[in-house]
Amino acid sequence: MEHIDNQLQTLIKNEQIEAFRDEFLDLHPYDQAVFFMEQPEDIRLRIYMYLSPEETANFMENIDLEDIEPFFMEMDPRFAAMVFADMSTDDAVDILNELEKDAVVSFLTIMDNKAANEIKQLLHYEEKTAGSIMTTEFVAIYQTKTVKDTMQYLKAEAPVAETIYYLYVVDQDKRLVGVLSLRDLIIADDDTLISDLMSEKIVSVSVAKDQEEIAQMMRDYDFLALPVVDFQNHLLGIITVDDILDVMDEEASDDYSKLAGVSDIDRPNDNAFISAKKRLPWLVILSFLGMFTASLIGQFENTLDEVAVLAIFIPLIAGMAGNTGTQALAVAVRGLANGDYGKQGKMKLVLREAGTGLITGTVCGLVITIIIFLWQGQFFLGLLVGLSIMATLIVATLAGSLVPILMDRLNIDPAVASGPFITTINDIISILIYFGMATAFMSFLV
Amino acid sequence: MEHIDNQLQTLIKNEQIEAFRDEFLDLHPYDQAVFFMEQPEDIRLRIYMYLSPEETANFMENIDLEDIEPFFMEMDPRFAAMVFADMSTDDAVDILNELEKDAVVSFLTIMDNKAANEIKQLLHYEEKTAGSIMTTEFVAIYQTKTVKDTMQYLKAEAPVAETIYYLYVVDQDKRLVGVLSLRDLIIADDDTLISDLMSEKIVSVSVAKDQEEIAQMMRDYDFLALPVVDFQNHLLGIITVDDILDVMDEEASDDYSKLAGVSDIDRPNDNAFISAKKRLPWLVILSFLGMFTASLIGQFENTLDEVAVLAIFIPLIAGMAGNTGTQALAVAVRGLANGDYGKQGKMKLVLREAGTGLITGTVCGLVITIIIFLWQGQFFLGLLVGLSIMATLIVATLAGSLVPILMDRLNIDPAVASGPFITTINDIISILIYFGMATAFMSFLV
Repeated sequence: MEHIDNQLQTLIKNEQIEAFRDEFLDLHPYDQAVFFMEQPEDIRLRIYMYLSPEETANFMENIDLEDIEPFFMEMDPRFAAMVFADMSTDDAVDILNELEKDAVVSFLTIMDNKAANEIKQLLHYEEKTAGSIMTTEFVAIYQTKTVKDTMQYLKAEAPVAETIYYLYVVDQDKRLVGVLSLRDLIIADDDTLISDLMSEKIVSVSVAKDQEEIAQMMRDYDFLALPVVDFQNHLLGIITVDDILDVMDEEASDDYSKLAGVSDIDRPNDNAFISAKKRLPWLVILSFLGMFTASLIGQFENTLDEVAVLAIFIPLIAGMAGNTGTQALAVAVRGLANGDYGKQGKMKLVLREAGTGLITGTVCGLVITIIIFLWQGQFFLGLLVGLSIMATLIVATLAGSLVPILMDRLNIDPAVASGPFITTINDIISILIYFGMATAFMSFLV
Repeated sequence: MEHIDNQLQTLIKNEQIEAFRDEFLDLHPYDQAVFFMEQPEDIRLRIYMYLSPEETANFMENIDLEDIEPFFMEMDPRFAAMVFADMSTDDAVDILNELEKDAVVSFLTIMDNKAANEIKQLLHYEEKTAGSIMTTEFVAIYQTKTVKDTMQYLKAEAPVAETIYYLYVVDQDKRLVGVLSLRDLIIADDDTLISDLMSEKIVSVSVAKDQEEIAQMMRDYDFLALPVVDFQNHLLGIITVDDILDVMDEEASDDYSKLAGVSDIDRPNDNAFISAKKRLPWLVILSFLGMFTASLIGQFENTLDEVAVLAIFIPLIAGMAGNTGTQALAVAVRGLANGDYGKQGKMKLVLREAGTGLITGTVCGLVITIIIFLWQGQFFLGLLVGLSIMATLIVATLAGSLVPILMDRLNIDPAVASGPFITTINDIISILIYFGMATAFMSFLV
């Protein structure tokens, strides 16, 4: 790779256009994108000049959406519009969704009508729904045709279609009536009718369906593509598995970063200020929540003054509470995301978490009571801390599973109940339990 | 779905075998699996009797590996062996990897030799490598053949091959020399030679390659399948995108649960004891680490006795440290997993994190100093806590990114540096900074 890069750069610098085109177009579009991304603006501007809109569209589809805006802004608008027109519709829409509203409008006005209309249709659909990730370049065939006719038709359609490995059978009003894999078509005899070959058990998704659920279906049913229909079962587009790979990656990073309390994972070329901006919101909220916790402990200042040793176990108890909470949270969020839990399933989950909390609480409580007894020789102090840990773990585990379930019930993405939030809630709970008990049993401690 | 389930159950109970087979085999294998999983043992045993090994293999491939062992244990071993023989090799191997060693041996001995040998070959490969997820049911063609011949050949191979949408071209010694998509084949004229049609720029992976990297490649290059070769470039098998969807899901859950400090995410039918077993290891380790933190604070008991109010800010400081650490950890782990950072990239990451810590530290430090000043009217106390927060956030952010990078350098999966671990490390650091400063500036506080 390294030396090809240098070669390409020199070819551009020496304006050996043909040689550059041969070398460059010989690369996989993804590798073309990687090379392109590493170039300074002046080189990039030349690349646009040396390539056709279609050749540019080809590798632009492989650039991360977060990074792509500047490239289209530096292109000649007319050229950019042609690039969009030459992309597969779904990719063009994804990119346009990243751009300024007025930029989008200007591109669409320059673009030739056919392409512009296809794109406009898709732009309506809400982000993260089937409509926003589907493509309209699919192969639809008629059930009245024979295998031979269809093969002929395919030869013509194949170059432009996003996939030809699933063929969708529609009736006169474009309603989806069947599906056929290219595999079945190839095995079949030339004059078999499509209607005899197709399967009428079609799994399709509505345009409004959430992309995460669609990824789930693709994984479960091992489809390479899924047809997208409106509410009258008209075939609107298809979603191909390569887009689903990106969706899964996006959703996974999303849950992951929420668990960590980052608005989203930083990109390699983010600078410190951008990263700080992504993390500060949570940290500032937590500062205030933390001050609240502090004022809570403040309420127990007398208890603290009398038994200063109590203070040394605060991080232990708060820490344990935070960690069990996060564990329970992760289990619940992941389970809900995978659709593992039905209606009574959620009840079962909560009950199990209660049980889990009871077990982990008892074990850790015992361990800690014993350690403190052996280490400080204070049985009652050990018992107090141990009991607090036990109570805390039970409550924290329950909280960790109840909060996401509650959010799910309210149709909020459970992953929003991010780790830091649960942790802080549980800090507060644990402090109340610990100092509450301490104050109650003061007489045994002093 | 609900009512189909009941229908199927009654058909089984009334031993209406044919009716049951019609209904059941009409379902998608995934739905068959879902139904099967919900049945009690007596019903399951009948299902085995009513279906052929091949029909059973069909839906067994859709059952989660964690749940599958009991089903094969309850089957007649001879039947089970036939089921394995009828599965696609990669799925059979995945399942056998879940079973007891001696069970595997007994199955393989009963199985017919051809199938057994194919499986034995794959069983050698290490888990989570290309070898362990590839299938040997691929279509290899010769470059000397014409399009027409190849189409004929495909008609024969299609039913058994895992995918026919990529055709791999090999020479006489089975070395991989080219690749061809079925799409290209269909567009081409009947008597074109494969050698004129195939692309010689083949992206292939070695049997030993890690599955996570392979998932990355599939996502970047939008392949539906990847050829797997040995070190002499002999074609050994292919990895299809449907298996990669499972890999991505597995790897995501894996990173996610590690961040939360759970050995792995509980399954819906786990009971409280199983869940507790998965979470206790961390919690017990944390109990001990927590005791260490406690003993650390113990060192500062005099400071505490003199200024008891110090205690109330412990959870605030420890909490903030834990949270920034987790944020930095998440960013680093995710970035390393995506291969976003090269050699100097890692250095850049650390520098950026240092900057991020400085910014977040300064902001939060200021916020907290001001709050404490306004709320407790104590400027020096506020300054002390604020400065501690600032120092803590810088160190914690650095720790959060350095630990995973260090692990990566030592070829340990960075995700192992799980959230709770970083959190506790940072608790300890924060306590040292806070009480260290407090003891140093004692004179200003009392």
